[in-house]
Amino acid sequence: PGAPDLITVRGLRALRSADVVVYDRLVHPDLLAEARPGAQLIYAGKAPGRHAKSQDEINKLLYDLASQGLAVARLHGGDPLLYGRGEEECAYLLSRGVECEVVPGVPSFVGAAAEHLIPLAGRGVASEVVVSTGTYAGGSRVSEDRAKSLIELAGNAVFLMATKSYTTILRAALHAKGRDVAVAVVERATMGSRLVIDTASRLLEADYRPEPPSVIIVGGGPEWRMRLGVKGASRS
Amino acid sequence: PGAPDLITVRGLRALRSADVVVYDRLVHPDLLAEARPGAQLIYAGKAPGRHAKSQDEINKLLYDLASQGLAVARLHGGDPLLYGRGEEECAYLLSRGVECEVVPGVPSFVGAAAEHLIPLAGRGVASEVVVSTGTYAGGSRVSEDRAKSLIELAGNAVFLMATKSYTTILRAALHAKGRDVAVAVVERATMGSRLVIDTASRLLEADYRPEPPSVIIVGGGPEWRMRLGVKGASRS
Repeated sequence: PGAPDLITVRGLRALRSADVVVYDRLVHPDLLAEARPGAQLIYAGKAPGRHAKSQDEINKLLYDLASQGLAVARLHGGDPLLYGRGEEECAYLLSRGVECEVVPGVPSFVGAAAEHLIPLAGRGVASEVVVSTGTYAGGSRVSEDRAKSLIELAGNAVFLMATKSYTTILRAALHAKGRDVAVAVVERATMGSRLVIDTASRLLEADYRPEPPSVIIVGGGPEWRMRLGVKGASRS
Repeated sequence: PGAPDLITVRGLRALRSADVVVYDRLVHPDLLAEARPGAQLIYAGKAPGRHAKSQDEINKLLYDLASQGLAVARLHGGDPLLYGRGEEECAYLLSRGVECEVVPGVPSFVGAAAEHLIPLAGRGVASEVVVSTGTYAGGSRVSEDRAKSLIELAGNAVFLMATKSYTTILRAALHAKGRDVAVAVVERATMGSRLVIDTASRLLEADYRPEPPSVIIVGGGPEWRMRLGVKGASRS
């Protein structure tokens, strides 16, 4: 999810044994330093809505490298199958006879929740959690109506890549659950992160605007956290 | 999530340095073997709906151990804040002046998805994923109506601890999205797991009943997986 020691043991082993590492924009430099000496490091640079390499280019690159007999580690931020398009990369390779294994990762929102003790689901918190995105592939943003429906239905609602949709999500939260619904914003989850937590109405009135990357959580989790006692719009 | 090498590097470090390890029912023995020689291992044995120790007993145990000056690792299956009640444990400790840090983990459904290449959310899969439970704290089960609402709203719907709610979830899936909606059942995710994937209607007609622990995924993820090509009700 960001912090280099939050990779799994299996992921670290794959990274250390690879001939080539193809890595994303938010991958920590200390993690790249784990690659073996002489391993080739290639930047695939995905940012929301704009790609240093297109997905097609990444797929072809992975295939070309693997076809040369190289062991390739494709290093994603978060989990590869949660908005990471790891499935497209694997499908491309598998259909051409190249083996592909997905090592699961800690999603960024799970890292953000642990860091700031914001529970995701369970007794006294929320019956379920919905995980959505503020920014879809291609760069379009979640609509206020859609965000409102998700927040209304689920006890806890998480929005990834949420920076540009911040105000939309706040308004959706307020219309779905009232002015006192709790909202937590975590910037740079697990990497020197900052938490801002308060009611939707107070956040709408405040000057604060999140900086990317940010995760927004709305509902039972932030409410539980506020009951535990944190100052409004606290920063840690 | 189950497999011992899917713990994070930070989690493994905490486990190895602990004086006492308090562990859940589904924790792998190989992981317990990572505790340092002489470390005390205490079983907290949570099963859905029945607890070897009650949550209050676990809270008190953690506090008593920490009060003796011992470094305690509380080892959860999956992520501690996703139906794990890690927040209750931490709140209990923090309110009594004991430090508590949550190390995030790979949730079991993320492990299940990676193992069987079932994408969770993203372009061509689902705009969002909702994570629910088949069995609530206390042992009551998700209702067909509630499951239907979640499946209707979210492009992908995941039910943890779903074994006893299997038929309920299949019926909910069928009523929400029609007889051809794809459903994946993963038993024993990441630990010698088995995948059963097919349409809701075919699964309702089949003899198959999942064995615990199982995760059920309904919607865009399993549909993507079936398009990639797997045999109906295949087992791996």
